[in-house]
Amino acid sequence: MSKPLPLLSIKGFRVGTTDAGLRAWFGKTPSPDLTLVVADKPCAVAGVFTTNKVKAAPVLLDQKRLASNPESIRGVLVNTASANACTGQEGMQNAEETAALAAKQIGCLPQQILVMSTGIIGVQLPMDQMRAGIPAVYGALGAENWPDAAKAIMTTDTRHKIHAIKSNGYTMLGIAKGAGMIAPDMATMLSLIVTDAKISAELLQDALQQAVRASFNRIVVDGDMSTNDTVLALANGASGVEINEEQFPKFLVDLAQVCQVLARKVVEDGEGATKFITIRITGARFETDAKAIAHAIATSALVKTAFYGGDANWGRILAAAGRAPTKSFNAGKVSLWYNELCLVENGVPTNYNQARANAIAAGKEIEVRLELGIGWRNYEVWTCDFSHDYVSINGHYRT
Amino acid sequence: MSKPLPLLSIKGFRVGTTDAGLRAWFGKTPSPDLTLVVADKPCAVAGVFTTNKVKAAPVLLDQKRLASNPESIRGVLVNTASANACTGQEGMQNAEETAALAAKQIGCLPQQILVMSTGIIGVQLPMDQMRAGIPAVYGALGAENWPDAAKAIMTTDTRHKIHAIKSNGYTMLGIAKGAGMIAPDMATMLSLIVTDAKISAELLQDALQQAVRASFNRIVVDGDMSTNDTVLALANGASGVEINEEQFPKFLVDLAQVCQVLARKVVEDGEGATKFITIRITGARFETDAKAIAHAIATSALVKTAFYGGDANWGRILAAAGRAPTKSFNAGKVSLWYNELCLVENGVPTNYNQARANAIAAGKEIEVRLELGIGWRNYEVWTCDFSHDYVSINGHYRT
Repeated sequence: MSKPLPLLSIKGFRVGTTDAGLRAWFGKTPSPDLTLVVADKPCAVAGVFTTNKVKAAPVLLDQKRLASNPESIRGVLVNTASANACTGQEGMQNAEETAALAAKQIGCLPQQILVMSTGIIGVQLPMDQMRAGIPAVYGALGAENWPDAAKAIMTTDTRHKIHAIKSNGYTMLGIAKGAGMIAPDMATMLSLIVTDAKISAELLQDALQQAVRASFNRIVVDGDMSTNDTVLALANGASGVEINEEQFPKFLVDLAQVCQVLARKVVEDGEGATKFITIRITGARFETDAKAIAHAIATSALVKTAFYGGDANWGRILAAAGRAPTKSFNAGKVSLWYNELCLVENGVPTNYNQARANAIAAGKEIEVRLELGIGWRNYEVWTCDFSHDYVSINGHYRT
Repeated sequence: MSKPLPLLSIKGFRVGTTDAGLRAWFGKTPSPDLTLVVADKPCAVAGVFTTNKVKAAPVLLDQKRLASNPESIRGVLVNTASANACTGQEGMQNAEETAALAAKQIGCLPQQILVMSTGIIGVQLPMDQMRAGIPAVYGALGAENWPDAAKAIMTTDTRHKIHAIKSNGYTMLGIAKGAGMIAPDMATMLSLIVTDAKISAELLQDALQQAVRASFNRIVVDGDMSTNDTVLALANGASGVEINEEQFPKFLVDLAQVCQVLARKVVEDGEGATKFITIRITGARFETDAKAIAHAIATSALVKTAFYGGDANWGRILAAAGRAPTKSFNAGKVSLWYNELCLVENGVPTNYNQARANAIAAGKEIEVRLELGIGWRNYEVWTCDFSHDYVSINGHYRT
């Protein structure tokens, strides 16, 4: 592990936040809701986006930018309150206009600005507030405002999520917001990672995809997938340390570490979550089978409510595994562990200690391992339990 | 619609229930927990079973019986409290023994008895209680005890589910238990339908499969699928009315009607349910796409909690549709209705009345229609909302 960075700044990047009145416009308690990240020099950029077929305007805009202009990004504008999704032509025009307004402040081209939005689907950006907010947030730029930025991008999150490292002469810092609507194959709704390493957009994209596969794509809160999920990485080269093919493996480990720490924080802060649960599937014939089973277990409302209740009701885990769409599965070869305690061996309950099993299920951190006994492929996901608070938060998000 | 039957008996069938102490054994409030259905003469039988790869012992036993002996069934023994699933060799032996004990009481062969179990997974049947309970339940047989049977098979159900009809000289009666762990492609955990029509096992199986496809397979409570789901139909021919190829369509309609009424009751009594929601997907290019989208919406925790909160947060419906694994989907062609109110047209929100939308979302019965605009295939599922009570019920089912 590279050591955590005490000073929360990355050379050549500035960040600011402001209360532009976006939350207030939608009847929420006001707090900073608009964030601008500015790089002094053009950056290489990489992005991983939601695979949802309903994509928000900022996702479509950023994908266009990355395709045409991946080596000269100067800024990222992030707003909460409106997700700018399902907003049609007008939503796309608004995304373009906000990018152009930020570019004007910075003194660059609109194509050098990326945008991210999170919040309610199907409502337009409050453009009066955005137009007034963009000069204000530009005026608030500073090198050490990253914790404020991590707070300003929150929606139903209860804690801000930030992680920074120093490694081999370069630094790297990430912020994320998550909470609900998180599923494998795209995770935290928004994450932004900046580094002063010098790396090409092509290598950075390669690294980000691998890092996301090993982190954000492993987390499950409620099985839903957002229209807005985006992970962006910006590299400005200010450290002078160049990442070529040789240094690439070390850089990849660093990036994956930042993504994993943020991904874990997202699960720990899952809507209403009280527990962190690792679902590890081993002994599968195919990795796709292991993944399908891990996902079926991690999204099962019955499994997640049982963990919330601290109930070692492992039958629900086998039932979820059995309904997963797998090519190869044999109920008579399956074994199951909660932490170190073996509950099921070859499909039949062991003579385990029920009090010990309940004590594990009642804990804050649980590893569930399901050994399929028919091969050597593995897959792991991280999830949380399903509580009364999840229902409260999501039953009344808009009101 | 054939008219509901006032008298709750079917010629040639008797049914009894007893408190065999099964619920008490697992620390639950005692109430009748063992049910026996007896046919005076051998019956034709049909069955539809869970597609879960983890199958309970009674499912495996019944499948064996149906394969070898579909024209001479004399009885069905149903227990609650233990699901007899994930119980290995011993569980199968216990299932066989209870069938043999019931057969001895009735005076038939063990192969003429079917068994059904519902309850906790991974615990053996309490055999002392079963051995004492079987003679007791045989002693309690009567023609009109069907409502008691519908009650005795309940687990987390809050209401018993029963429906009977008289049609063309024959009668038909069904009972069901459901509540949680219900998903398309197998629905209520247990349902048993008896009729005094005379029909071959082959035709009955054909009719039952079609009826289940149009009823139990359309309902979704929590997206999970039980290890025990079973629908059985028994026909004893006591009415003398023979169902041949010509009468088959009418018989099919009757059977489908009984199954649909029971399936609706299961959704209405879904764990913690406060609303009945119809999800209708129209205009798909392929039926598999319509089905995948209907299922994604009906199992989305975000959609279901929004309905619980009476919040017309339709963005979550589009987001769920967008993540469904479809071959053909165009976000710009999608239109959405809540009842008669059009919220989205061609991917963009209409200028709808928000108060009206919330009033619909706050109602007890809601139809959501999503028109995909790219074809003419349809699919419909029935589901319920997701409440605090669902979490309470499932967080502490065993304790």
